[in-house]
Amino acid sequence: MMANKIKRLLFGKPLHNEEITREKLPKWKAMSIFSSDPLSSIGYGPEQIVLILTVPWAITYGYTWLVAVAIIVLMGIVTLSYSQVAKVNPGGGGSYSVAKKNFGELAALTAAASLFIDYTLTVAVSISSGTDAIISAFPVLTDHRMTLNLFVLFGILMLINLRGVRESSNAFVFPTYAFVFGILALVAAGIFHIISSTTVIIPQTSLERQPLDWTIIYLVLRAFASGCSSMTGIEAISNGIPMFKPPEVKNAQLTTYMMSSILVVMFAGITLLIIHNHLLPVENVTMLSQLAEATFGRNFMYYYIQLATMLVLYLAANTAYNGLPPLLSLLARDKYMPRYLANRGDRLTFNNGIILLSIIAAVFIVIYHGNTEHLISLYALGVFLSFTISQAGMVVHWHREKNSCWFARAFLNCFGAIITGIVVLIIMVAKFLYGAWLILIAIPLIIFIFKRINSHYKDMQSQLALPPYDLITPSGGRNIVIVPIAGVTRVVANTLKYAKEISDQSIAVFVATDKESAKKIEEKWNSWNPGVRLIILYSPYRSIFGPLFRFIAKVESKKGPNDYITILVPEFETHRWWHRLLHNQTGLLLRNLLVFRKNVVVTVVPYQLEK
Amino acid sequence: MMANKIKRLLFGKPLHNEEITREKLPKWKAMSIFSSDPLSSIGYGPEQIVLILTVPWAITYGYTWLVAVAIIVLMGIVTLSYSQVAKVNPGGGGSYSVAKKNFGELAALTAAASLFIDYTLTVAVSISSGTDAIISAFPVLTDHRMTLNLFVLFGILMLINLRGVRESSNAFVFPTYAFVFGILALVAAGIFHIISSTTVIIPQTSLERQPLDWTIIYLVLRAFASGCSSMTGIEAISNGIPMFKPPEVKNAQLTTYMMSSILVVMFAGITLLIIHNHLLPVENVTMLSQLAEATFGRNFMYYYIQLATMLVLYLAANTAYNGLPPLLSLLARDKYMPRYLANRGDRLTFNNGIILLSIIAAVFIVIYHGNTEHLISLYALGVFLSFTISQAGMVVHWHREKNSCWFARAFLNCFGAIITGIVVLIIMVAKFLYGAWLILIAIPLIIFIFKRINSHYKDMQSQLALPPYDLITPSGGRNIVIVPIAGVTRVVANTLKYAKEISDQSIAVFVATDKESAKKIEEKWNSWNPGVRLIILYSPYRSIFGPLFRFIAKVESKKGPNDYITILVPEFETHRWWHRLLHNQTGLLLRNLLVFRKNVVVTVVPYQLEK
Repeated sequence: MMANKIKRLLFGKPLHNEEITREKLPKWKAMSIFSSDPLSSIGYGPEQIVLILTVPWAITYGYTWLVAVAIIVLMGIVTLSYSQVAKVNPGGGGSYSVAKKNFGELAALTAAASLFIDYTLTVAVSISSGTDAIISAFPVLTDHRMTLNLFVLFGILMLINLRGVRESSNAFVFPTYAFVFGILALVAAGIFHIISSTTVIIPQTSLERQPLDWTIIYLVLRAFASGCSSMTGIEAISNGIPMFKPPEVKNAQLTTYMMSSILVVMFAGITLLIIHNHLLPVENVTMLSQLAEATFGRNFMYYYIQLATMLVLYLAANTAYNGLPPLLSLLARDKYMPRYLANRGDRLTFNNGIILLSIIAAVFIVIYHGNTEHLISLYALGVFLSFTISQAGMVVHWHREKNSCWFARAFLNCFGAIITGIVVLIIMVAKFLYGAWLILIAIPLIIFIFKRINSHYKDMQSQLALPPYDLITPSGGRNIVIVPIAGVTRVVANTLKYAKEISDQSIAVFVATDKESAKKIEEKWNSWNPGVRLIILYSPYRSIFGPLFRFIAKVESKKGPNDYITILVPEFETHRWWHRLLHNQTGLLLRNLLVFRKNVVVTVVPYQLEK
Repeated sequence: MMANKIKRLLFGKPLHNEEITREKLPKWKAMSIFSSDPLSSIGYGPEQIVLILTVPWAITYGYTWLVAVAIIVLMGIVTLSYSQVAKVNPGGGGSYSVAKKNFGELAALTAAASLFIDYTLTVAVSISSGTDAIISAFPVLTDHRMTLNLFVLFGILMLINLRGVRESSNAFVFPTYAFVFGILALVAAGIFHIISSTTVIIPQTSLERQPLDWTIIYLVLRAFASGCSSMTGIEAISNGIPMFKPPEVKNAQLTTYMMSSILVVMFAGITLLIIHNHLLPVENVTMLSQLAEATFGRNFMYYYIQLATMLVLYLAANTAYNGLPPLLSLLARDKYMPRYLANRGDRLTFNNGIILLSIIAAVFIVIYHGNTEHLISLYALGVFLSFTISQAGMVVHWHREKNSCWFARAFLNCFGAIITGIVVLIIMVAKFLYGAWLILIAIPLIIFIFKRINSHYKDMQSQLALPPYDLITPSGGRNIVIVPIAGVTRVVANTLKYAKEISDQSIAVFVATDKESAKKIEEKWNSWNPGVRLIILYSPYRSIFGPLFRFIAKVESKKGPNDYITILVPEFETHRWWHRLLHNQTGLLLRNLLVFRKNVVVTVVPYQLEK
């Protein structure tokens, strides 16, 4: 079939169960695959700080480096905390598994709900920011922002993930290193400029800090909350430990340190340069683009940095496709999500999860019009919430195990949990009006849905379970066959033949909408005499289903407890598709309405038209 | 059910077959009901002439009255011709019936196709013009033009027609007379102004006619073609003769004359005043609105005229709802349209025709953005085409009957046919680029569709016809029952029970997507031992349908010619609707895919979940 061919072309040939691969990655490869998400945050994180501090006549611009230092400290704490998560949880699985093991259902579901939000927002934020990067370089694309976003989402990410990509593909290694190289070159060139003093000097007034008051404290906190988006994704490695070469935990930890170091250097460098160049927000141009232009001019290096930023951001969006569908399949296996999310498709990918993720991310992108700033405030909140939960889970773990130096370890995670918890509160307060309230509603709502789904599956299991030794014996009842007819035709003859095959109690029923047609059909029937009783129902209100259903109900009320009622629906299949439009789909409708009746078996007897 | 209650509220209770009414109307009532369509043309007709003649620096403005006189003469001819149609065709039915009786299939279908286009365009043009009238009075509505158009179409006209309105309702009598009164008052006041000379004098140069050249001839012809839209609807009475009180024909003719006289007076008056006030087209303000404002100022009379114009135009759109659905039902009965267009709904209305008309009119409105000018050029063409056909039909009729003075009558109709035929050619040439080419494609296309539908129904009839004395004898073959299962549950037990009822040759089939599940199901089955053979199909590519369909095909290839294959699809009905989302709809999909297989009977055995 045509549809099948197109499917093959888009998604490739089906894969055999045994083709599932579990490859082990060397550190340099793992590093690039897991860190596209956190490192790419540099594409929007530092900008978010300045964006807020420059709003009221730039009077708070001078606080930028303070906020930056606070974030760098936080990065250190989170990194250390997560290197411990890796040790305890070598099987991966992230905060849902940690919480499930250590706290039980509610915490696990909370973690799952916030991960669910995080992953979808990762996709939305990364795609929007990637598009921002390319729009900064090519302003002609400004009007096509939404089209670009949705094309990347559905046309590229969803498609290649449905096709199933090997996470280890070299295509995924390249953009991360290209991006790291570009940013480090930018930072180096920028610092060289500072030293050789060829750049503009910042107006000194702008860096003078105004005395603190509540407005300024609020702005600084908001800037801090937004800037925290620079470390989203730091947890990625702890979810993928089984993919490292042995010794897995050691390698994963080393990689985490490595990644964080690069992140800190890039973050500090970019923020420094933004302050030094005294950059201010410009619509439709990212700060990274301004910075690259100020440092290199519009030459090859500028375009290189914009393209690498775009690629790494789109790649970061892709990491959510590696994260959420497996989480959904875990949830589905634990019966918190629809069971079909656990099935692997043709290409061994979790198709349904991939499609679900794409649709929800699209909703976020469309609702927020690809406006990165507001998406990020939602995003950071979700991320820090799951940071806090998994750190707290670790504390409980250490306390329970009481290994050597458990106290020091527990203290570290406890400190991490408290700090990230405070960040959650700050974001909550600072960003409440900008969308954070949504998360407050969404997480309990998602948990509620998880629980309702779970209770439905449990109910069902108990209802469907077969009692032991429930033998199948013939019911001993009759099978009353009802054949609704629309005329005296071969289709009806064909159906009656089958009726006689499965029962000796058949009734044909005709619904007449006027008296002439009733008379005509009766005469035809009698002259044909097929050996089946015909009952004519007169329907002066011209409804077909009403009288028919009342008749079926009447038969139902008279039948014995072991009797079956079978409705045979004659149906002819037309030769060409458009012929279908010429027939009122009474058969189709009838069969779909009847299927909802509790005690009635519905049978479709086909009759094929030849031309 | 809720849905039923809403339906009742919107459409009213079902009506009994015997509640069909065939009321007789007095002349004054018939006049207002049938003439809303032609008289309302005054709302846009005169404007169309000036619209074209003022385009190139108003150099052709002076030709306006010439065009107007030509149109008035044409009105006279068409009126006389149609009063003869009334005489010959007292049963109504319009040009489709006339052509069918006198010319045969092709002419009848041509008439039907052009009527089909006319009626849908009547709706589109009248609604758009009605909205224009109200927008002229309340410019604040300008941005909501499309919303208003579609609301009037679906929210008012379609709804009340589905509900079924008595054409004789007094609600329909009022707007026509209100409109006639308003326009006559406007004309009278305008002429009074002229006489008492208080209005502005026209710049004399503007009325000086430029010497004719080809460009001007083309413009004048285009203006004439557009102006002809002023007489659309004149044929309405000849389609509704049975609704008049006896003597029907006489009364219908008198009403036609009456209506035409009013039409001529209004048309001449409005055109005169437009010329005298030297009105020029203004965007978003109709000329009728300009004229009313120039004559009365923005007082009560101005708003009265705008509202009456709006009402009468919407009412004119409604006449198409009285015309097209019955025509479609005639076509459906003659097997040129899908049969269900002939059925009367709950409220004795031709529901499907009403919905079809609304959808097509909406397409026209949306494509033309409610731009009246271009819609009208299409519209006038269709109307004059059907004028020509029915006049020509009359000529043939007179020639065939050869009554007293047949020659004079034939001459009159022949003259009418030639004149309207010339108008068709003029519109065709003058408006070719403005949409008339569309009609050239649409009419043959619609005729082609009519014929294809007809041949399908004929094919089907021959295939479905029952040979005489075709007795129903049991086939003597076996009934092989296949039960696809997804596990060992009560649902399956329930299904197998039914399988044993209808056959003693049942096979259960399980498609295993991995080896463990195959093993598990086999063990369960053996320990249960329901007395039915289980076949396990291993599907390493995890497709369910592929292996199952191949298995069915294998069984099919082995069965005897008289054997049946019945597939029993176990299906459980969930307790709440949203539970459905939690199950992959394999059963539903399976049954819909199987229904397309030629030789397989599909049976759904229900199992109801209790919670």
